[in-house]
Order: sequence, then C-alpha cells, then structure tokens
Amino acid sequence: MSLLAIDLGGTKLACALLTEEGRIISRYRINLEDRKGKEIGDLITSKILKEISFQEKSGDPVRSVGICIPGIYNSSNGTVWAPNIPGWDNYHLRDEIKNCGIHIPVTIDNDRSCYLLGEVWLGNAKNCRNAVFLAVGTGIGAGIMCGGQIIRGSNDITGAIGWMAFGKPFRDEYRECGCFEYHASGEGIGKVARDYLSEDKQYTGELRYLDLNEVTSYEVFKAWQSKDPLAVRIINESVELWGITAANIVSLFNPEKIIFGGGIFGPAINLIPRIKEEAARWAQPISMKQVSFEPSALGGDAGVYGAAFLALLSM
Amino acid sequence: MSLLAIDLGGTKLACALLTEEGRIISRYRINLEDRKGKEIGDLITSKILKEISFQEKSGDPVRSVGICIPGIYNSSNGTVWAPNIPGWDNYHLRDEIKNCGIHIPVTIDNDRSCYLLGEVWLGNAKNCRNAVFLAVGTGIGAGIMCGGQIIRGSNDITGAIGWMAFGKPFRDEYRECGCFEYHASGEGIGKVARDYLSEDKQYTGELRYLDLNEVTSYEVFKAWQSKDPLAVRIINESVELWGITAANIVSLFNPEKIIFGGGIFGPAINLIPRIKEEAARWAQPISMKQVSFEPSALGGDAGVYGAAFLALLSM
Repeated sequence: MSLLAIDLGGTKLACALLTEEGRIISRYRINLEDRKGKEIGDLITSKILKEISFQEKSGDPVRSVGICIPGIYNSSNGTVWAPNIPGWDNYHLRDEIKNCGIHIPVTIDNDRSCYLLGEVWLGNAKNCRNAVFLAVGTGIGAGIMCGGQIIRGSNDITGAIGWMAFGKPFRDEYRECGCFEYHASGEGIGKVARDYLSEDKQYTGELRYLDLNEVTSYEVFKAWQSKDPLAVRIINESVELWGITAANIVSLFNPEKIIFGGGIFGPAINLIPRIKEEAARWAQPISMKQVSFEPSALGGDAGVYGAAFLALLSM
Repeated sequence: MSLLAIDLGGTKLACALLTEEGRIISRYRINLEDRKGKEIGDLITSKILKEISFQEKSGDPVRSVGICIPGIYNSSNGTVWAPNIPGWDNYHLRDEIKNCGIHIPVTIDNDRSCYLLGEVWLGNAKNCRNAVFLAVGTGIGAGIMCGGQIIRGSNDITGAIGWMAFGKPFRDEYRECGCFEYHASGEGIGKVARDYLSEDKQYTGELRYLDLNEVTSYEVFKAWQSKDPLAVRIINESVELWGITAANIVSLFNPEKIIFGGGIFGPAINLIPRIKEEAARWAQPISMKQVSFEPSALGGDAGVYGAAFLALLSM
C-alpha cells in the first residue's frame, strides 16, 4: 500500500509515491509551463488517475492521496485561492477531483500546514503536539498545530503571519502584503535594500555596483556574508522582526518547537540562535524556556512529505 | 441536577449554583481576608463539600464542579501558579480536592480560558468555535478557542498576550510583565500617565492636580471623558496597541469573534469601534472582514459562568 503526495508550486508540480513509513518510492516533477486554471486541475487529476492505475497493476495500490497547494484551501466548499496560479481564484479543486471518479481518499491543504505536518511526521517537529512552522520565502506564512491539530480558524485563513503588525508608522505599501512580510520576507528584504540604496547616497559598498532592480534578497545575503555594512544593517533589522514575531508565537501558543523554513532559511539558517536571543527579550519567560527553535529538516521536500502525511492521516 | 461554579480572585471567592441551562440558583462571595496557601485550598474544599452535602439533602444534587483560578493551571500535574494568591506557587489544588473525598468531577482552568468559555456558553461568543477573549484588567491575558477547543500549548501557558512585542525600543521594565501589558493594561495606563506627568512639565491639566501616586487608569479615563489632552494622548496610544494586538489575533487565528473584557472594558467599551478601525489597517484583510469585535456580555460574571460551563463540559 502506498501514499501519493502532490505538491503544487507556482511553477511546477511535484508528485511522489511514498510508503506508509515515509520512504519515497518514486518521484518526478512537471513544469506548469503556461498552463492555467482548469488545465492545472486536469494535470493534477490525470497524474492521480495514472498513478492509481499504474500502482494497481504493479500490486502496490495507492491507498490515499494528499495535495499541498500554494494558497488558501477552503475546507468547507473545497475551493482553492492561489495568487500565483493563474485562474485559481476560488477554484473548485475538490469537485474537479471527485468528478473524475477517484475512489480513494483525497485530502487537500495549504502549503504552510503541509510543511508543518511534514516536520511533525518525519522532520524536526517529530512527535510534537504544539508546533509552528514559520515559512519565510517570497512571502511569509505559518502553519500552526495546537494540541495535535492544525488550527483552521473560521474560514481556513489561520497563520497569515505576514500581516503581523509591530506599531511602526503605517505605510500604504502594507495594504498589499502586511507589515512583517513587507519588511522581512524574501521579496521584502530585496525591497528594503532597494529603498535604502535609493535613499542613502553615502553608501559605496558592493550592492551599489548592481543595477537597482537586480538587488534581491539573494544579493543581500551574499553581501552580508562579506560583511557589507548595508547588508548587515538590513539583516539585523530582519533578525529583529523574525525574533519579535517568534516571541509573539511563543507567548500566544506555548509551543514545543518553532521550525524555521522557506527559501530564506536557507541562507539565514545560521541566524536562528540570534533570532532566539532576540525573542528571549520579549517573550513570556516560562514559555520561552520550554521552546526550541530549529531549522526545517525537510527543506524543499516539506510540502511533499506533508502531503503524504495528509494522505496517511485520512486513511 | 446542578452545577457548582467557583471563581477565585485575588481578594475574594465567588461560589454559585447553576442549572445546566446556566440559570443561577444561588450565589455568594467570601473575602479571602488574610488567608494564604493551604488555607485558601481548604476554604475551597470546605465550600464544595458543604454545597454537595446541602444539595444532596435538598434533592437537587451537585453533579459537577468547575473552578476558575487567577493564574496558570498546569493540567498535567494539577498545580496552580497564581501570583496574587500568597503561597500558590505550584500549589497542588487538584490533589487537595481529590484527597477530601469529593466523588463528582471537579475541573479547574485559568481565568482567561473560563471567561471565554462563559462567553461561548451564554455570552457574546455563543456558538463560536473560533474566538478569543482579550482580558484587559490589572494585567492582560487572552483565552483562545480554535475549532471548538481551548488551546493549552505544551504547558498550559497559552494566551500570555501581555507579552506581545511591537518592536518599540526594548526597556528593562518589560522583563516583569511584557511590553503590551506595560503600556496598555490597567496598571500600565496608570504607569504611563505617571511617566508622562514626571516628564512633561508644560502640562497643566486635571491630572496635574493629583498626587502622582494617586494617578491610576481610573483617573486617566475620568480625565479622558472631559477631553483632558494628556489623558486623550494616553488613551489614543492604548487604542493603537489594542488595535494592533487585535489585528495580530485576527491574522493568526481567523476567529469569528474577539471579545473585549476585563476591568478596562468597562470604561473603554465605547472604544471598541476605534480599536476595530485600527486593527483593520494592519490585519489580513479577508479575515478582518469575517471577524466581529464585541464587548463581554457577562462582565464580572464571566468567570462564574465559565467555571459552570467547565463543570457542564466534564459531566
């Protein structure tokens, strides 16, 4: 018996077959190319049907399917809102799959919850019942587990932590993405760097030699590694915001673990001890002593493992 | 069949008998006077035993007991840490009660969770499955319900929202009580007022005529009602912090309701629409449209009703 995990990203679809113990049997990726709307739904259902039929014949049937989607999954009506998938604005993914005659359980959830489930199953949050996955990539989101359950809220929009507010003076730019995401996401770090470069004409470090619109978080981390003063300033400010946010997570949720993942943790992985130091200044002190801050163990595979665990849980 | 609710405060013990529908049959209060430690535990057990025996005879036996305590209740070992009850530093309340030969269910929980349960049962969060009670009194705490369950975290210290951090420059005073509580609790508002009075020698409004250590949140609200400029400034700053905190609750929990209670909402009840306006600038916009901000319906009785609901839930 095997599990089929599907991890949809903004540009590719990852499919994997796993054992119930979480060993990957086979996997592949498909670029979405210029597919949109229903074409992407069709791609997913065709891959599910193909794997079910192939595994049936091979004597190791697929028992359950999990799908990780990059957006909000509305569990009451089965629709997906995914800003980076063209045409997936309340797209009826669950109905689409049902209508294809798939007769094994298919469970769908958003990426941040899947990342956390992956880490709880096989990663650095193994056996935790209270844990938070802070995903810092292009955007920022959090998967949150309380008492062994992913919290969903009234309409499945929990963990929108990119909107965390800090009482900085309000700026119109926050309306689009939230204050925390504006300053401390992958996209945000690039934006902050470009702002500083436009303002600070005194600075003559290495970021100055780039074309302004080439300056991304990648360049900032590169410059930071060679101790460029502007890059150091930007990363210090991000560490402060990541730390304050982590403190607020600790004070509200009293978790066993906070897992730091997403593209930025990556290059920021060595900053986790500094983030913890910053958090310790602000958080409820007893809770702070009980929590552990760890990087994602599964990295780019957290979505695949999370989708597989979704599948396993619904068997 | 009736429920016995016990609400322990820093200075008094409230006892009430309720029907399973939440009608109060009888109630009374006892001042704690100079009781401490085990004496308070003994007071509680003696009241429980007395009510059980009396009701037994009257033909309407007590079926279940709920106790609301002003501190942290550790559900794994049954101890209470209550900073305002002398000698209740990991006090074994559950054992104490068990050892008295009480043979009906006795359920204990912290005050902020009880307040929320009260509102969910009979108040302004009736029928909610995702709701937060923001209690702003001397201190600040939050009861949090996700998917119909009070969240407890790894060691029952969830909702320590007085420690919410905003990225103000860190001050040593935050170590004792948290940044949010320092600025925007009942005690905080008095402290902030006294700080401003010491600094701002230009101000000649009504708060200036008080002895400095007489200036409390009560005086600030009184002065605010007559549009005193210093009081207006202090209340505006509190509204900003309450609004930002409410925004962060909305973005993280996607709740149906936030209930504002505790002594401060009281005089601040008319500020709730302004708090909502402030929150709407910062919070995840879809979640913000789905949430309702409401005052506590039960006021000072939220603890009693919450304790009774605890009792009902464990029958």
